[in-house]
Amino acid sequence: MTEPLPAVVLLSGGIDSSVLAHYATNALGCAPVHALSFDYGQRHRLELECARFQAAAAGVVEHRVIDVSFLGDVLRPGSALIAGGDAVPDLVALAAEQLDQPPTYVPNRNMMLISMAAAYAETRGIRDVFYGAQAQDEYGYWDCTRAFVDRINDTLALNRRDAVRVHAPFIEKRKADTVRLGLELGVDFTRTWSCYRGGERPCGTCPTCVERRNAFHEAGAEDPLEQRA
Amino acid sequence: MTEPLPAVVLLSGGIDSSVLAHYATNALGCAPVHALSFDYGQRHRLELECARFQAAAAGVVEHRVIDVSFLGDVLRPGSALIAGGDAVPDLVALAAEQLDQPPTYVPNRNMMLISMAAAYAETRGIRDVFYGAQAQDEYGYWDCTRAFVDRINDTLALNRRDAVRVHAPFIEKRKADTVRLGLELGVDFTRTWSCYRGGERPCGTCPTCVERRNAFHEAGAEDPLEQRA
Repeated sequence: MTEPLPAVVLLSGGIDSSVLAHYATNALGCAPVHALSFDYGQRHRLELECARFQAAAAGVVEHRVIDVSFLGDVLRPGSALIAGGDAVPDLVALAAEQLDQPPTYVPNRNMMLISMAAAYAETRGIRDVFYGAQAQDEYGYWDCTRAFVDRINDTLALNRRDAVRVHAPFIEKRKADTVRLGLELGVDFTRTWSCYRGGERPCGTCPTCVERRNAFHEAGAEDPLEQRA
Repeated sequence: MTEPLPAVVLLSGGIDSSVLAHYATNALGCAPVHALSFDYGQRHRLELECARFQAAAAGVVEHRVIDVSFLGDVLRPGSALIAGGDAVPDLVALAAEQLDQPPTYVPNRNMMLISMAAAYAETRGIRDVFYGAQAQDEYGYWDCTRAFVDRINDTLALNRRDAVRVHAPFIEKRKADTVRLGLELGVDFTRTWSCYRGGERPCGTCPTCVERRNAFHEAGAEDPLEQRA
């Protein structure tokens, strides 16, 4: 028998990180699991409510929503995801040359959030941080890649005591694979939030709404959130 | 003639970063220069006042003190530098095996602060971030090393647009070299703060007080702050 692995999970409340929280607690058997969410002034506030729901459903020992709303000032007007920034464009309106760094990119967000999660873990003697990044098809971000995670780990490995490691088990999977895994694990997808636009219902046309619909379609499933709407 | 280089300087209000701010504006001719300080609940609050003074003295275009006091909760009880953490030990009380990661180490602090500075820079179209880390003699931190800066830069270099670069011009210098440079540049060292203990006067025995005294001694100069006290 191996010892249960204490872990920190970055939990945004979207599909990938919600499945990741369940995967860590129920499939990998990590324990205790701490979940961290960040309030950085995102338009899509509903995702934080979804994060709270999923943290409880996955059975984490502690869920913290860390108020990093000062980042809104640091970042504005850097991203369409921040309230006060540009409007979120439809996916179809993006030019081909925007797809590798679309307007919904938040400058260096993931290094900031991962470095905080690593600090939180290190302070508590936890060595493993789980990050729900995944390879995307329609568009993508440099800080959701395998190379990014590898280089962050190369940096953290310099720690002279117990270095924290970042794990991104979905980073080479398709989003449809994550949807399938979530269905197997019984994740309630009506309580996951993807839409970037911050309305009460998913808009259906922003980049992440399109991606979500395609992922469910490819997984041969219906999105229960869409059915409800 | 070369174009002036816009830059962001991480400015704590200690000797190294204060000299760095003057070095960037007056020696390197960077312009415009933005200075960033972070309020993370440090015991040594006076350093933030010193940061304000030095930012003005160096002629930066903007100085922001970013309230990251939530990090006190994320980190506590991880470091003796955070109010509420352990007491700051005298340097002479540190065991040899503590010197490579002393109790004054703040878990992953520098990755957090650099990642925020990089986000701030990227949002404003600035590509260069200056970081005052320097090789230390008596003790040291993994996140003040050349390897750390190199790996952070390897990570940031993955950005698909204009990658931010971190420069640490003092990282292979001795603190005495920084003191000498500061004296040449006219830095007012009475307005730099080093002591970790947070009193109204430097304690004289904590690791950074000892290091400061040794640096002035090695530079063949008197510390004007000590003279004043």
